[in-house]
Amino acid sequence: MTRRPSFTVRPIGVVHSPITSRANAPRQGAEGAPDAWIELDPSLVRGLTRMRVGMELIVLTWLHRARRDVLRVRPRSDRRQRLAGVFATRSPDRPNPIGVHRVTLREVEGARLLVGPIEAIDGTPVIDIKYAMPNY
Amino acid sequence: MTRRPSFTVRPIGVVHSPITSRANAPRQGAEGAPDAWIELDPSLVRGLTRMRVGMELIVLTWLHRARRDVLRVRPRSDRRQRLAGVFATRSPDRPNPIGVHRVTLREVEGARLLVGPIEAIDGTPVIDIKYAMPNY
Repeated sequence: MTRRPSFTVRPIGVVHSPITSRANAPRQGAEGAPDAWIELDPSLVRGLTRMRVGMELIVLTWLHRARRDVLRVRPRSDRRQRLAGVFATRSPDRPNPIGVHRVTLREVEGARLLVGPIEAIDGTPVIDIKYAMPNY
Repeated sequence: MTRRPSFTVRPIGVVHSPITSRANAPRQGAEGAPDAWIELDPSLVRGLTRMRVGMELIVLTWLHRARRDVLRVRPRSDRRQRLAGVFATRSPDRPNPIGVHRVTLREVEGARLLVGPIEAIDGTPVIDIKYAMPNY
C-alpha cells in the first residue's frame, strides 16, 4: 500500500463523567455505565440544531489513555485467553484509539448534552456526534 | 472549555470500491451499497488475528472528500428541508469527517478484508476496525 497522509482530529468537546480511571470504567456502556455530560466547544453549538431529547446518538471519542502500539490482546470473552487482533475486538488499545458509544440523549442545555449510558472516563475528548440509525 | 490538543490519525488501510464519486455513492450501506476490499497496511496484519468470516464489524473511515467547515445541513429525510446541525445527522460534512460503517466480514486474504455492504468511495482511508456488538 502506498504510504498515506495522516489527518488531524480536533476535539469538538469533552466528557464530564463520574468515572475517573480505566480501572473503574465499565468495559461497555450497557454494563452499568452512568450518564455523562458532553461539553461541546461553544463555537460549534450551531451543529446541535434540531437535536431532540430521546434521540439515539453515536458519540466518537479519542481514548486518550489508550496505547497505540498494541496489535494483539487477550479478550476477557475468551476463557482460554488466546491472543486476538485488536481489530477483532473492542479493546481501547489500538493504532487509532477511537471509541464508539451508542447513547441516548437525555438533556440539552446550550452547548452541553447529557447522554448515556457511556463508559468514557472523565476528561475524554469527544471527536464526533452523529444520529444513530436503528440497528446500527 | 479549555483549548484541547489535537490528535494525529494515521490510516491503517484503504477502501477499494467500485464506487468512485460521492455523486454515485449510496447514502448508507443498507441502501444498495456494494461490498469492498479493505487493504490493510501490511505492518498491522497481526491485528487481524482471529478475524472470522461472518463477523459483524464496525469500520471507521476518514471521509476525505468531505467538508470540515459545515455545521448545518438540509437533511433529505426532512421534507420541509429545514436546517439541522451536523451532529444530529449522518452528513459526511462535519468538523471531523469520520464515517461509521457496520459491515459483515465476507472474506480474509492475508492483509485484505472483503466487507459489506459499505458506501465508502474508492480510495477512502480506513482508520479503525472493531468487533460490532449486537444492537450496537
